[in-house]
Amino acid sequence: MNNRQVVLVQRPVGMIDETTTALKEVPIPECGVNEALIKVGIVSIDPTIRTWMNDAPGYLPAIEIGDVIRAGGTGVVVESKTDRYNVGDIVYGMTNWQEWVIASEHNRFTVVPSGMGVDLPTVMNVLGTTGLTAYFGLLDVGQFKEGDVVVVSGAAGATGSVVGQIAKARGASKVVGIAGGPEKCAEVVEKYGFDECLDYREERLSQRIRAACPKGVDLYFDNVGGEILDAVLVNIAMNARIVLCGAISQYNAMERPKGIANTSMMIMRRGRMQGFIVFDFASRYGEAQVELATMVLDGRIAHQEHLVQGLEHAPDALNLLFTGGNHGKTLVVVDESVTLS
Amino acid sequence: MNNRQVVLVQRPVGMIDETTTALKEVPIPECGVNEALIKVGIVSIDPTIRTWMNDAPGYLPAIEIGDVIRAGGTGVVVESKTDRYNVGDIVYGMTNWQEWVIASEHNRFTVVPSGMGVDLPTVMNVLGTTGLTAYFGLLDVGQFKEGDVVVVSGAAGATGSVVGQIAKARGASKVVGIAGGPEKCAEVVEKYGFDECLDYREERLSQRIRAACPKGVDLYFDNVGGEILDAVLVNIAMNARIVLCGAISQYNAMERPKGIANTSMMIMRRGRMQGFIVFDFASRYGEAQVELATMVLDGRIAHQEHLVQGLEHAPDALNLLFTGGNHGKTLVVVDESVTLS
Repeated sequence: MNNRQVVLVQRPVGMIDETTTALKEVPIPECGVNEALIKVGIVSIDPTIRTWMNDAPGYLPAIEIGDVIRAGGTGVVVESKTDRYNVGDIVYGMTNWQEWVIASEHNRFTVVPSGMGVDLPTVMNVLGTTGLTAYFGLLDVGQFKEGDVVVVSGAAGATGSVVGQIAKARGASKVVGIAGGPEKCAEVVEKYGFDECLDYREERLSQRIRAACPKGVDLYFDNVGGEILDAVLVNIAMNARIVLCGAISQYNAMERPKGIANTSMMIMRRGRMQGFIVFDFASRYGEAQVELATMVLDGRIAHQEHLVQGLEHAPDALNLLFTGGNHGKTLVVVDESVTLS
Repeated sequence: MNNRQVVLVQRPVGMIDETTTALKEVPIPECGVNEALIKVGIVSIDPTIRTWMNDAPGYLPAIEIGDVIRAGGTGVVVESKTDRYNVGDIVYGMTNWQEWVIASEHNRFTVVPSGMGVDLPTVMNVLGTTGLTAYFGLLDVGQFKEGDVVVVSGAAGATGSVVGQIAKARGASKVVGIAGGPEKCAEVVEKYGFDECLDYREERLSQRIRAACPKGVDLYFDNVGGEILDAVLVNIAMNARIVLCGAISQYNAMERPKGIANTSMMIMRRGRMQGFIVFDFASRYGEAQVELATMVLDGRIAHQEHLVQGLEHAPDALNLLFTGGNHGKTLVVVDESVTLS
């Protein structure tokens, strides 16, 4: 039995394709002292993975040519030579795109508690970096206040949908989503309970934001960057906060993006724009996960996972994030026998 | 004797010209109960005046066609029917571009104390909104910290030059200016004591910023916006603060500006960008003026005023700010007999 891996073969220009990655088989790694061997169950598909494929410094180093694609994931401990993990533990950490991984001092995993009443895909969505990004981005970076008018782009996406639902639960006066196409917009309103959702593929987005938020936007949670960010900027309220979470519109860009032109609105309206990476809040994940789990269990957070079967389909699954072909958090099931009791 | 005024005749497209404003003569206003009549001495020429001429909502309403051009200025009280001002007081407030103005409940002036040892142009520069903008922008909005690497655009300008000098006095590890042309760059280093000054008219500004600030820019005070802001963005350090004070590069823009493309650096580096208007700090002007006056008197703040003689030249003086034809704070002397003892 071997360890199948998806490795980076060639840095992509634009969307990734069959020349970007390759399937590779290597022996299953040996479990050394103070280590544990993990059988990977599900890997997470996140837009940021695309940015790690570029030969550019980011918040983490670029993935090297020949290396396994970096990704979060969950698995089950099948062998352990450390007190940290017991055989049978379900764990969450950097599995990367492969079937087997070693937990070590350099690659630590978190044991996922059982008996929470939520399944593994939900843990990887709402209680994973996706939901945590929504939580800390809205509440800490965005300094959300009761009564705020909140706009969220990528509103049908895994992070955006949670942002809007936390904002509603915490007393936003209005929550407006931005998403691509009528089907997603309907989902944002009907499934995730946003007050309204604007289709960015239609014309005059800026005017439609103004109509939806006549008193201005107090907090904008930006998952996409580019022209949508610019369209919101002209509509910010006094002392608005703009949370830069991602710039999915630019991750596959092959030319210099058009850029945002309306920064002078930030002077007139005393706006604040701030970028963040959820890892900075790692010491506070616990408090957030308790609140998020409660909200899932009492139904205040609706969620959806888009499961793709088979490690070999991970590259296609990544592209779904950029074509909008996914619904909810995209996950690739590597071994469906790994579940949470 | 009449009151000469410069009024808005036609909204400008691009730079203002002889069709934008006109000189008009009206009777000197009557001093009513609870009012004072002020003879205007010097009016302030600021980039923001250009933005008020557009038919667009800003942080103040647009100047209406036919109205006197709005501007700060100083004058002497020649008649008073209120306890607030005594005849002979030198006062600072919104004089607008005219020879006479009424101080009232709706247009309050501040009495400038005499005996400070500084002249009126200096008061209007370092102790006026120009210096106050530098002070609050750097220290409050930018949350300047000792050891910061600070970059300032418009560094030869009235605000930028003070920003850099306060940063040096407060213990910045390096202060780098950005200005237009070798003459201004020399002035920034030799007169204002910046460590270095980069000419934005030369190529590869972004690479030159990296060379000057190899560990990244902790605090960027932006007076110009546009491409220079974008060039700094790619060079920000972790937790950088970007203070948006003005966007002088865009005030005369006739087409959509190119926009800033590097906002994703704010995510990777957890940067914060914030706009402000100095009026928000009005309740704290006193504390700042005491510190600024001390720094002027003990020589830690060098300053320079560019005096233009004659109210009728105020429109040309405004254009100097955009062509770079001024040196230091630009002021128009309406009546040179108004001085501070």
